[in-house]
Amino acid sequence: MSETDLIHHIRKLAERGQRPPIIQSIGDDCAIVRPPRNRDLVFTTDFVLQDRHFTLDTHSPAEIGHKALARSLSDLAAMGSEPLFCLVSLALPSSMADTFVPQFYKGLMGLAREHNVSLAGGDLASFPSVVADVMCSGTVVRGKAFLRSAAQPDDYIYVTGTLGQSALGLRLKTGAAWARHRRPTPRIEAALKLRRYGIRCAMDISDGLSLDLARLCTESGVSAGLVPAKIPIAPNATLDDALHGGEDYELLFTAPANKGIPRVIAGIPVTRIGHIMRQQSVLIKLDDKPLPQQGFDHFA
Amino acid sequence: MSETDLIHHIRKLAERGQRPPIIQSIGDDCAIVRPPRNRDLVFTTDFVLQDRHFTLDTHSPAEIGHKALARSLSDLAAMGSEPLFCLVSLALPSSMADTFVPQFYKGLMGLAREHNVSLAGGDLASFPSVVADVMCSGTVVRGKAFLRSAAQPDDYIYVTGTLGQSALGLRLKTGAAWARHRRPTPRIEAALKLRRYGIRCAMDISDGLSLDLARLCTESGVSAGLVPAKIPIAPNATLDDALHGGEDYELLFTAPANKGIPRVIAGIPVTRIGHIMRQQSVLIKLDDKPLPQQGFDHFA
Repeated sequence: MSETDLIHHIRKLAERGQRPPIIQSIGDDCAIVRPPRNRDLVFTTDFVLQDRHFTLDTHSPAEIGHKALARSLSDLAAMGSEPLFCLVSLALPSSMADTFVPQFYKGLMGLAREHNVSLAGGDLASFPSVVADVMCSGTVVRGKAFLRSAAQPDDYIYVTGTLGQSALGLRLKTGAAWARHRRPTPRIEAALKLRRYGIRCAMDISDGLSLDLARLCTESGVSAGLVPAKIPIAPNATLDDALHGGEDYELLFTAPANKGIPRVIAGIPVTRIGHIMRQQSVLIKLDDKPLPQQGFDHFA
Repeated sequence: MSETDLIHHIRKLAERGQRPPIIQSIGDDCAIVRPPRNRDLVFTTDFVLQDRHFTLDTHSPAEIGHKALARSLSDLAAMGSEPLFCLVSLALPSSMADTFVPQFYKGLMGLAREHNVSLAGGDLASFPSVVADVMCSGTVVRGKAFLRSAAQPDDYIYVTGTLGQSALGLRLKTGAAWARHRRPTPRIEAALKLRRYGIRCAMDISDGLSLDLARLCTESGVSAGLVPAKIPIAPNATLDDALHGGEDYELLFTAPANKGIPRVIAGIPVTRIGHIMRQQSVLIKLDDKPLPQQGFDHFA
């Protein structure tokens, strides 16, 4: 297929899922969106890179498409935002295009339909390796986005689901944990339900709890105390997997003690794992001992 | 520098240029934007890939940053849109990061400041080659975006500037044409001034006149007749460069004969090169002979 044929195929997929705020999707120089009233828009973009976020040996094209959108949707969940649309940039060897492109978009659009995300545009290019970059936009009521910077001393700290499963899966390369690693679930529904509890501070755990919680503490100008016995470690994973493993895509959030956060939300367990403290010399303490940040740093 | 240090550097740059509609730029899971009233938003994203859109031997990091934003801004110009903000995804070898990242953003932010574009977010990753993907968003008065699909029979066809300079530059690798190829100028100012003339149909010429005009004709359901003697060929370039060379980033637009399109706009010449006809079996005729499409197709 030529570039024109491939884009025609993607355009048909996009038009099938196009919702009212999208005035124009693929077919022009830009997509056109009419923003809903009284809403802020949030925007995120995330790479999914060959041999870094996936390999062609272990991940199907549909799984790569799913993961590419899931990473960005997880960022929308972190803001308490309702997904609206995405732009998808995909580069790949031209020899692979005819089989890879339709399967990649099939995986991506499957997840997009689950969350009412319109595919509004993107870019397609030939390149020696597979590179995807997905920009995702969602809406929030004005001024109500969850922020990393809104944690307050004495807030409790919560996480959704279990931690360490993705790191375990990456090590084992088999079983449920490996399936979860290859096909992460963004916590959109849980995030939207959490809005009812007056949450103001959240982020997603993509680079590991120790690194991501440290980022939250830095942005909020606070410190955190974690209780290791409370951390919901995934079955067969270790405390180290749960503390430092990346790509769990669970939500990390804080709330004052009186908010009545439920133990299950949208079918996902919610666990209190610690509390926020005034800023100290140490960002995070685990049972009163300093917790080093060992999550993933691209340039460390 | 670690990923945290690099992002800190980029964040300082972003905060310096942050304008009111941007509520939150770098530092959270998503950027937050409060859309202006009664405006549509337009969105585009474009790759700039090593050894495809540039080489590290011929392009400085600042030129690569400039070009990465210029490609997306050119798409905003094509819609008659006023630039608002961008998200920048950059992947590169970690060994290059300390020198490349600051220079890349210096080049990008230079162009961003010229056009009031806020840097609102992005992604940064390590990868064996340099890959940038820039998402750019702008505003248009509701329903007033220029569209590829709005050409009407009997419209005149116009281009801004001269054509073929980028193709010539790529061949010569020296002189003014080569400088222009490395540092393209998006026609934002010309596009904004053209709005006064009731233009409805435009696109940018990024893959060559013959291919891009064919796309416009397909979207509008029309054909086009070009007069070769009228085509504004860049000095020392050939008619073939002007017809089929990519990356000129000039505007291609159509307008009814009575619109009084000026010969110069925002200091850039505007040239009438042909007219739109009812759809025929041939998309484009050059002096009554069919013009084959020879522009750049990534997957041809």
